[in-house]
Amino acid sequence: MLITKRFLALSLVFLLLASVGVPVKAQQTLKDVKKERGLSDANVLAAVKTFMPRGGRDEYFGFVGTGNSGTMIVYGLPSMRIYKYVGVFSPEPWQGYGYDDESSLMLKKGSLDDKIDWYGDMRFPALSETNGNYDGKHLFYSDGANSRIAMIDLEDFETKQVLSHPLFISCYPEVAVTPNTDWVVQTSQFPSTWNSRSVDLKKNYDSKLKSGITFWYFHNVKKVTKTGHAGRILKEKSITLELPPYTLGYFDVGKMAGDGLLVGLADKGDNHYAYVVDYKKIVGMKTTEINGFAVVPLAKALKADAIALIPLPAKANILKITPKGKYFITVDDQTNVFDFAKVKKALAGKTFSGKADGGIPVIDTKAVLHGSVNFGGNVIDVAFEYRPDIAYASVHNAKKIVRWNYKTLKKTGEITLDFMPSYLMVPQGLTETPQSNYLAVVDKEVDYKHLQSVGPVRPSAQHLIDISGDKMYDLYTMTLPQCNMYGSVAVLRTIIKPIIRYPTGTNSRTGEISPFKTVAGKEKIERKGNRVHIFGTLIRSHITPEIVQVNQGDIVTFHLTNLELAEDETHGFTVDTYGKHGSFEPGKTASLTFVANREGAFPYYCTEFCSALHLEMEGILMVKPKNYKATGGSGEIQLTAKQLAGYKKDYEDKLKVIAQTQDVINSVVKWLKENHYENYPYVKALVVDAVAQLNKAAVPKANYEKFAKQGKWKQAFLWAEQYFQYQVKAADSGLRAKKLLKEKLEGIK
Amino acid sequence: MLITKRFLALSLVFLLLASVGVPVKAQQTLKDVKKERGLSDANVLAAVKTFMPRGGRDEYFGFVGTGNSGTMIVYGLPSMRIYKYVGVFSPEPWQGYGYDDESSLMLKKGSLDDKIDWYGDMRFPALSETNGNYDGKHLFYSDGANSRIAMIDLEDFETKQVLSHPLFISCYPEVAVTPNTDWVVQTSQFPSTWNSRSVDLKKNYDSKLKSGITFWYFHNVKKVTKTGHAGRILKEKSITLELPPYTLGYFDVGKMAGDGLLVGLADKGDNHYAYVVDYKKIVGMKTTEINGFAVVPLAKALKADAIALIPLPAKANILKITPKGKYFITVDDQTNVFDFAKVKKALAGKTFSGKADGGIPVIDTKAVLHGSVNFGGNVIDVAFEYRPDIAYASVHNAKKIVRWNYKTLKKTGEITLDFMPSYLMVPQGLTETPQSNYLAVVDKEVDYKHLQSVGPVRPSAQHLIDISGDKMYDLYTMTLPQCNMYGSVAVLRTIIKPIIRYPTGTNSRTGEISPFKTVAGKEKIERKGNRVHIFGTLIRSHITPEIVQVNQGDIVTFHLTNLELAEDETHGFTVDTYGKHGSFEPGKTASLTFVANREGAFPYYCTEFCSALHLEMEGILMVKPKNYKATGGSGEIQLTAKQLAGYKKDYEDKLKVIAQTQDVINSVVKWLKENHYENYPYVKALVVDAVAQLNKAAVPKANYEKFAKQGKWKQAFLWAEQYFQYQVKAADSGLRAKKLLKEKLEGIK
Repeated sequence: MLITKRFLALSLVFLLLASVGVPVKAQQTLKDVKKERGLSDANVLAAVKTFMPRGGRDEYFGFVGTGNSGTMIVYGLPSMRIYKYVGVFSPEPWQGYGYDDESSLMLKKGSLDDKIDWYGDMRFPALSETNGNYDGKHLFYSDGANSRIAMIDLEDFETKQVLSHPLFISCYPEVAVTPNTDWVVQTSQFPSTWNSRSVDLKKNYDSKLKSGITFWYFHNVKKVTKTGHAGRILKEKSITLELPPYTLGYFDVGKMAGDGLLVGLADKGDNHYAYVVDYKKIVGMKTTEINGFAVVPLAKALKADAIALIPLPAKANILKITPKGKYFITVDDQTNVFDFAKVKKALAGKTFSGKADGGIPVIDTKAVLHGSVNFGGNVIDVAFEYRPDIAYASVHNAKKIVRWNYKTLKKTGEITLDFMPSYLMVPQGLTETPQSNYLAVVDKEVDYKHLQSVGPVRPSAQHLIDISGDKMYDLYTMTLPQCNMYGSVAVLRTIIKPIIRYPTGTNSRTGEISPFKTVAGKEKIERKGNRVHIFGTLIRSHITPEIVQVNQGDIVTFHLTNLELAEDETHGFTVDTYGKHGSFEPGKTASLTFVANREGAFPYYCTEFCSALHLEMEGILMVKPKNYKATGGSGEIQLTAKQLAGYKKDYEDKLKVIAQTQDVINSVVKWLKENHYENYPYVKALVVDAVAQLNKAAVPKANYEKFAKQGKWKQAFLWAEQYFQYQVKAADSGLRAKKLLKEKLEGIK
Repeated sequence: MLITKRFLALSLVFLLLASVGVPVKAQQTLKDVKKERGLSDANVLAAVKTFMPRGGRDEYFGFVGTGNSGTMIVYGLPSMRIYKYVGVFSPEPWQGYGYDDESSLMLKKGSLDDKIDWYGDMRFPALSETNGNYDGKHLFYSDGANSRIAMIDLEDFETKQVLSHPLFISCYPEVAVTPNTDWVVQTSQFPSTWNSRSVDLKKNYDSKLKSGITFWYFHNVKKVTKTGHAGRILKEKSITLELPPYTLGYFDVGKMAGDGLLVGLADKGDNHYAYVVDYKKIVGMKTTEINGFAVVPLAKALKADAIALIPLPAKANILKITPKGKYFITVDDQTNVFDFAKVKKALAGKTFSGKADGGIPVIDTKAVLHGSVNFGGNVIDVAFEYRPDIAYASVHNAKKIVRWNYKTLKKTGEITLDFMPSYLMVPQGLTETPQSNYLAVVDKEVDYKHLQSVGPVRPSAQHLIDISGDKMYDLYTMTLPQCNMYGSVAVLRTIIKPIIRYPTGTNSRTGEISPFKTVAGKEKIERKGNRVHIFGTLIRSHITPEIVQVNQGDIVTFHLTNLELAEDETHGFTVDTYGKHGSFEPGKTASLTFVANREGAFPYYCTEFCSALHLEMEGILMVKPKNYKATGGSGEIQLTAKQLAGYKKDYEDKLKVIAQTQDVINSVVKWLKENHYENYPYVKALVVDAVAQLNKAAVPKANYEKFAKQGKWKQAFLWAEQYFQYQVKAADSGLRAKKLLKEKLEGIK
């Protein structure tokens, strides 16, 4: 009977739909879907190699600059899903970056005019290294448009430093680090004047221009704190090496066999060089000062035999050092492999063939060249993998990637693409131990025969190639929403250890406890003349204070602290029409300053969906007009009797739920104690977390009991709800601890 | 012999890798990959249903606001790849939105303080409709934080209008359109004062507050021009209906059976209503003026019986109208279906049960309720599909989606999820003909048990559910990089017809030819006092002029026109350290203004990889210091004899390539003519494109011949290269035309 009815219903549906061409699909098989979507067996394999099932984790975190937007994209490989946007050189509204006072101060301090630059040109990032391998702590970027350098902490994925270069007007948009991240290297791109920056435009224009290489000293504090890694670039300990007016290009820092050398590209007119700098000599030299920055004059470097040039056959696109540091490779129409041992020998023996601009010694190319190879077209980039001596070259116009051996100079494979490949990236690729599974290939001139058009300006794409086996496979095309894409880096996901929260009251930009930290019950409003400071707190269902009154024209600062301890319990904050936005992760304190120049009543609210009671997180900023006179009244909005009764019932219901939840917690605690949870560090961490949640719950409990006594049922209910939120999080941590311990006891990994 | 060698080599590699645990994978089978990645059969099916093979096109364009960032994400379904970021309420550096004068002017005009607001709260967009179906022309957004409305043109995916609301301080972040997009509806959210915006904070605070519904008049020009759709919101023809101080929520515009009615949510304390507005009466009424905006006082609406309230059992999360307009549905702990026919009858017959705030008549709920149903938890949203009377409900805490029949009020299916579902979207979902294949489900409190952590603040996710068959399947999790996600909309890809280029000289924000349009050869620099206007052009390998000299303190504007006709041939422009960025799509004219307050030589360059000669697109801004005196010289950088010879050779080589390419073009043209290409419209369009490219090539040809005569080989080579670029694009269009025509002649679709 049931079957018949359903059959009839379905038949009707089919009939109806058939008539308008929108078929209801039967439950499909792999074969059906392949046929319907026109997928080949290779497509199916590519699909399953990149698909991420629920609960699955990507193998790698990838990082790529959004080209001209000054923000960074965090994505996963092999799923190629975009996980996060991080503001670096430009403000980012979602996270209040460049909106709250703390991040704005950082950005302003790092600009030339004490203002926020709303733009950045980011191309080739560098991950921090320990012993020549990524340590997952920091990421560095150079701003090619506004001559800045930035450091991002990978513990919280926040930008912690932006510094303006005191000398260069134009920076090459790349950074590289030394094998233990003692120095972060940045160079100029186009030559410029340094001191007065004034320039005689005609006769001696050329003669005043300089180029340079800056070794930013990185105070690489090894300690990992709850507030993020404490490492910072120290400008006062950094050094710039002066160079003649070369246009500088890609560079790389040597490791192992090439340790101590920096190699990069330098062009002047028709002359193309690889420069070699013995940087350990440079960073130890006495310096002179220009614009307050330590400079090693070229003459000093020459005297110490710390620099030389190797003529290149043509303008090269890139220069990269092989994983074990034995060679460096430059690419143009051909690919040239240079031998570091020979370079070191030439330097040591001063076997130079002549001198170039400014008297820099020139090494004979043939004496240090291991060999050259031609892949039939202009090569844009090379990348390395784990297999010994194996490299990949992107042959742009020929639309192919060549796999080759840089020792034997023999081609060992290739894949023909239907796009023109440019920059290449292998996960862990710039370390001593790159991986051997994926090659990411940038496609900057995306052929929209292969993608749908999204109007006249179109984003870039990155393709994922499977290089794990003998044959290479083109797996996936990742589209990049806002990009003029160049380089990217990827690190094993497990190397990065993101934090969940900050210690309460943290200024996340400095890692220190903010002087504006506010705890529950200590909220206050302070006024001095027309300067108003609000010390407030955020916690599920409350912004405290809920009403703020100021005078038109007052300078107002909201200093807010997120009191949450729970995972992902971020609150946002904005005041309607005042255009300010803050993001407050658990524990963070940040400040929002604006001039209350318009009279009226302006709602403020939480902008991040934080719980079912998210909409209760609101308040009102009253801006009293000039010449305002109050006309009496309490200012408190009165609830009707019906409303009060409703809240009373809500409160009483919530108390019942709280009692039930407490029973669950008690039983879990009992079990954990009986099974000696304290002997298992990760289980113990979860229990500590649970206990911390419950400890926090003392304040809400005191509050709900207080308000209940006063018959303030709305407040009583909201605080009880708050108590319950803590309880639930504690129960959740406790249950996860129990599950984990149970698995451990049962011997399941 | 060969095989043996390879075998040995491979064996060695295996041996080596085995010792360090990085296995080279054999060429894998589906079975291998499934096992290795732990994929189930359901995972495999999900993978192949969402995987996009090279050259494949998504079925739908999806649009979602980035929550608190004021920008919009364009993505594809079912691949869930993110294709583009579009600046709407906030600047977007990549596209120069809020940086060039044209877009900055638009944003400033749309702000309260004549400044650019760097933030926006975007939740529920609306696509324009014709006869109740998406027409793929426009998209509208409301800014909940700064009370603005925006219109995006889907022909070029650019924001064309941002208007500040003259009355509301707080807007509900949703828009809806009438079935032919004559009116775009926006409402207030929290009540506020309207005229002086002053407010007595104590006694009569409440009494001065108002809410309202605004019907923005949309001058919906049907004509589609090359410069984008000409439709614009006209503020002077728009109308606001005054309401008592309700907190307003989600609303929807009726169609078909519900035509002429606007229905939405209104709350005041413990009273919860659906409001019903006969908007066709409202928009025809005589108005009074507040803050320069036309207002219909509540009394007038009451007199015309144009508004009524229906009490709701509880505060509802959403209100949506069914596809054929027969019902509207509100959701809270239960789901309530209201019958439009009964509502219309009650309105016509004035069968009211009483009066509420301000004297608004109240309709008895039971008299218009079709029925209620409970799905076992709080429902956040409902969505519809093509199958008659079928809806989906997201039951938040119960972690499930219920499929049900809103006519019979019977549940017909459900899927249990491992996350708490909130907002729902079906492609074409808010039209009269939603589709029946996918349901997108927002996951705002992402459980990071299922995703990797990216620090304390974490993005949202959207899940794709397959609803095509009897059983529902959870296919894919899309992560959203910068989001507090709410609503989204999706339209069939083929309905949107993106343009490729603008007519040369277009101001893309107005769609008109810019007064600053500059064509090749007409570049110039104009000065009046300290005001300098540069009229320049951009084309592959040239920024003209290449040197600009100004005085420190001058106000400088670069008016640049992209002369390209080719697809995706966008150029970017920035001046080092001056923090300005422009994006110039083919044909666009835009202007960048800044004060040259720092002396020195500042490189400017193209910021979008545009061709192999991209790096040649640079120039220099010379800012002469105050009290500067020139010391003679020509200002032109002299090439060495060797450099000159090099360029001469490059030039001569290029001329050979040009001759060969011309042969190809001639043969294609001959074939096309013989086969009467002019009878096939799409083929003809390609030929027109090819001819247009070649016509443009006349100027470069004249230039390269001129410079060659003068012995200026660099310029000659660059112009020859430019000529060649046009030729290649012409050849490409011609070959595509030939291929298409050939297929047509052979009868292949």
